[in-house]
Amino acid sequence: MKIAILLFDRLTALDAVGPYEVLARLPGAEVTFVGAAAGFVRTDNRSLGLAVDRTLAEVPAADLLVVPGGFGWRAAAEDPAVVDWIRRVHAGSRVTASVCTGSLLLAAAGVLDGVPATTHWNYLGELERRGAVPTVARIVEHGKIITCAGVSAGIDMALALSARLAGDDVARAIQLSIEYDPAPPFDAGSPAKAPAHLVEAIRARLAARDAAAAR
Amino acid sequence: MKIAILLFDRLTALDAVGPYEVLARLPGAEVTFVGAAAGFVRTDNRSLGLAVDRTLAEVPAADLLVVPGGFGWRAAAEDPAVVDWIRRVHAGSRVTASVCTGSLLLAAAGVLDGVPATTHWNYLGELERRGAVPTVARIVEHGKIITCAGVSAGIDMALALSARLAGDDVARAIQLSIEYDPAPPFDAGSPAKAPAHLVEAIRARLAARDAAAAR
Repeated sequence: MKIAILLFDRLTALDAVGPYEVLARLPGAEVTFVGAAAGFVRTDNRSLGLAVDRTLAEVPAADLLVVPGGFGWRAAAEDPAVVDWIRRVHAGSRVTASVCTGSLLLAAAGVLDGVPATTHWNYLGELERRGAVPTVARIVEHGKIITCAGVSAGIDMALALSARLAGDDVARAIQLSIEYDPAPPFDAGSPAKAPAHLVEAIRARLAARDAAAAR
Repeated sequence: MKIAILLFDRLTALDAVGPYEVLARLPGAEVTFVGAAAGFVRTDNRSLGLAVDRTLAEVPAADLLVVPGGFGWRAAAEDPAVVDWIRRVHAGSRVTASVCTGSLLLAAAGVLDGVPATTHWNYLGELERRGAVPTVARIVEHGKIITCAGVSAGIDMALALSARLAGDDVARAIQLSIEYDPAPPFDAGSPAKAPAHLVEAIRARLAARDAAAAR
């Protein structure tokens, strides 16, 4: 099973690495990290470089397409080479998946027109403006398209997808391998659960960052 | 706050990227990925390359040291340059943290002699043989040393550490930013919860891999 994970400048590392860590453990998985140019991309805060091992042109098809998000989502969504590639690979994929604002890239490729989908909680309005049917959920499955919530949700999504592709026992074995028995010290991982002042603070911070990126 | 995250060949990506995704969001955080040689390392299954931005010699000190694990733990634990670096940085650190089999590297550096610590569930015996007091827990804090369970546990550990370093509100805001509201599709993330045949299958697979690596 050929798995292509898109990399682009200023992606959020965990969006890509969470699903990778799960899906690479599927029997027969061949994971390739794909980007516009060979070399490295840097993550949103520039701290980490991830290797682009194949260019878009070198990977014309994949069984499973994974599109992460991150602060660079807008620039990636405005890059015709990236958007065309998503559209083409999606056309032949068995499953097309996104994490966080990766769904905004799927929407830019026209893949989510009228399709129930989700994204990072702060971007549900943006997802709607781009033609999808925004859905508040950890994971949204619609035919062969699977989208999920922000950043860390990619781990849950990839485990659900592993169960669908390879059966519950394989998914459970992967979960046990990565000791995914989550025990967050707080219960503040969604806007419904976190204190309102933190929700507002993050909304303001992300709005400022998006405005700067759009300039 | 200077945060140094060790990279070595055949590390497990999520061990490093989980804590990075959390800790890089701390106010004043400066994250550097450090390795034996400039360039990049490949992850355990070779699918992903991570950039080494600074060599060990270039980073003689850090406020927060993070040591990931992965199949390459044994080779890293036998590399005097890596072990000496861990020992030196730990001597001046404010916090020394490990994820998964990263604690076996801390033990190789003599940092865990007689210290309560944890690791991936399959390696608690190895941790004991290396002088630590093995402890079954998601996170173990002992003075300035914080160790955690396998792979995904680094996210929980980094959130707990964020609360200690910057307060509960900062930690909650980071949790909300990365939408860490985990919803695994199964409850199989620890050997106490997973079906026994899967625990045995993974033990056997890891034993075979470790035997091959030790040859």
